[in-house]
Amino acid sequence: MSNKNISITLTTNKKQKPDVNNLVFGKVFTDHMFVMDYSSDKGWHDARITPYQPITIEPSAMIFHYGQTVFEGLKAYFSEDGKVLLFRPEKNMQRLNQSNDRLCIPAIDEELALEALKELINIDREWVPQAEGTSLYVRPFIISTEPTLGVHPANNYKFMIIMSPVGSYYKEGIHPVKIAVENKYVRAVAGGTGQAKTAGNYASSLKAQEVAEEKGYSQVLWLDGVERKYIEEVGSMNIFFKINGEVVTPELNGSILAGITRDSIIHLLKHWNVPVVEKRISIDEIFQAYKDGQLEEVFGTGTAAVISPVGELFWNNERIIVNGGQTGELSMKLYNTLTGIQLGKESDPFGWVVEVEQKVEHK
Amino acid sequence: MSNKNISITLTTNKKQKPDVNNLVFGKVFTDHMFVMDYSSDKGWHDARITPYQPITIEPSAMIFHYGQTVFEGLKAYFSEDGKVLLFRPEKNMQRLNQSNDRLCIPAIDEELALEALKELINIDREWVPQAEGTSLYVRPFIISTEPTLGVHPANNYKFMIIMSPVGSYYKEGIHPVKIAVENKYVRAVAGGTGQAKTAGNYASSLKAQEVAEEKGYSQVLWLDGVERKYIEEVGSMNIFFKINGEVVTPELNGSILAGITRDSIIHLLKHWNVPVVEKRISIDEIFQAYKDGQLEEVFGTGTAAVISPVGELFWNNERIIVNGGQTGELSMKLYNTLTGIQLGKESDPFGWVVEVEQKVEHK
Ligand SMILES: Cc1ncc(COP(=O)(O)O)c(C=O)c1O
Ligand SMILES: Cc1ncc(COP(=O)(O)O)c(C=O)c1O
Repeated sequence: MSNKNISITLTTNKKQKPDVNNLVFGKVFTDHMFVMDYSSDKGWHDARITPYQPITIEPSAMIFHYGQTVFEGLKAYFSEDGKVLLFRPEKNMQRLNQSNDRLCIPAIDEELALEALKELINIDREWVPQAEGTSLYVRPFIISTEPTLGVHPANNYKFMIIMSPVGSYYKEGIHPVKIAVENKYVRAVAGGTGQAKTAGNYASSLKAQEVAEEKGYSQVLWLDGVERKYIEEVGSMNIFFKINGEVVTPELNGSILAGITRDSIIHLLKHWNVPVVEKRISIDEIFQAYKDGQLEEVFGTGTAAVISPVGELFWNNERIIVNGGQTGELSMKLYNTLTGIQLGKESDPFGWVVEVEQKVEHK
Repeated sequence: MSNKNISITLTTNKKQKPDVNNLVFGKVFTDHMFVMDYSSDKGWHDARITPYQPITIEPSAMIFHYGQTVFEGLKAYFSEDGKVLLFRPEKNMQRLNQSNDRLCIPAIDEELALEALKELINIDREWVPQAEGTSLYVRPFIISTEPTLGVHPANNYKFMIIMSPVGSYYKEGIHPVKIAVENKYVRAVAGGTGQAKTAGNYASSLKAQEVAEEKGYSQVLWLDGVERKYIEEVGSMNIFFKINGEVVTPELNGSILAGITRDSIIHLLKHWNVPVVEKRISIDEIFQAYKDGQLEEVFGTGTAAVISPVGELFWNNERIIVNGGQTGELSMKLYNTLTGIQLGKESDPFGWVVEVEQKVEHK
């Protein structure tokens, strides 16, 4: 029992760990998971760490019908000196509660959630992979479990944290991606759920993604749903453009996710005195900047890849090659700095890194 | 075994049926359910009717994270002469496949699904309530079950049908509802998932609904997400206005659901030579028609209530009372005719009603 009253039941049957050189994203899960229940009468209760296992749930559970659910994604890194480090995890718990608010899900105790997360990582510490570029991906999520078909905020929920060791995003070095600008489908619109991390946003994105992949693009760049010309974000990344020495990124307009990597990049750029502006940017402006020879770099930012340079953009039958299809200097510097901080190799001017302290071994 | 190869396992422990006079929507389920699995290698397979029971599912199942899911809703009615009747059930299966397409879920065999539905109703025939206004609500739905955190169309799904006896919507007579026009939140936008029956649309609607209820309104009327002035639909209903003798309803614009009741109402009105037009309608026009003394009736249409007269609309601090807050003549006639057809009491000029033929009793 910890001071936050998280009960712990350890597995008696540890799984074999996967080959760290062949990790597939989000397929293999660690030995344990965190679970906490909510009911309208008891509030959040019964915080517990248990062996990783399937859940049993009614077919009428509201999650299956009305999608009331939120999630988060963050990573635990193994540092050179043997520590396990988290990157701004409190931001994920804050954002989880912001998503909760939009989805009418009762707020969680962020401190408890953070402690549960650390406790869980500690218990499955040997699952934090040590090979270069690897990490332990952590997925907190909440689902509505009330077994009723009425459309209303549920009276029952489950908050869970599951974890999966993940491989290096850039096993063969950083390769810029090709991105198609989406004209037909819309991900989200102001007044909708775009700024929440909730399942429906991802479900609605699959179709455009499928079409883009058929054409050889790895992701889509979303435009706003109103005028269909302002840049929003990429699948699971925010997007930045370096134009004539200045870095620009779409402002938080109510329909894009407030990425934690995005926020960190903005902080770093300001720290370096690189001009950075959050504003509404049209896709025309980007193509025009390219034509004017001023589009220097484009990169996505997100927990999965940290920085993902964009080498090609396709829109309205026009294809532009950014920086000769190569990773730009600033993209590279940001990648190196941010991953350096995350791994405890670089100084951490903003105090972003949180160590998961090793506790006495659980029996 | 039926000719479509639906295997059947009957319960050995029939539940007690609820009091038909106190049925709460979607809380109690019948003794059996239909299940069919999908995997990329086998396609849809293993169609079966089993005792109603919880499902066991991995915490990493994609439904919990990326919301790839669709559903339908229809009713089985007990007729005066002891038949069990469905209303245009093939339309629900067609719409399910349209939703599937938008959500990148593999199409189901509509004929098989219809047969499964009938077989299931037959087995749980004694659950079709007989009291006036009651019915058996049928909920087909599909969830993505692949246990992987990558954002892509899943490789595994479950198609299920569950059923719940539901009470009369109008136990104490038809009472017009009060509806608030929503200015802040948006349900869906063209290019999004608004015309699919998928969980995310309902999750995103909860917040506005909550705010409206606090103000004493039972539902919200959604406006378009682009200009925020054109009328879309209500929570789980399409909407119609009778203005100066003409009935108008928003056209199918890509962001509203193509209601089956909506379609039936349009057919009936045309059959009666009542002018009916599907077009873009702004909320201003409605308030103006009211001021001009031309707004005669407003009603919602959907499977749950069939016709739901609207007695009050609230928008921008203005409140209008429709038809003195009373149910209009046309609303009443449509309600009586449609429920009459559904119950086999009125002639069925379009051949909408489908009987669930009684089979030899299953052991
Ligand atoms: C839609 C979307 N945008 C942006 C991001 C990037 O956010 P973060 O930097 O917090 O990982 C993510 C991934 O979490 C996402 O899902
Ligand atoms: C969003 C929405 N609009 C409209 C409807 C009405 O459709 P139907 O008449 O097919 O029940 C429903 C209910 O099914 C709905 O969920």
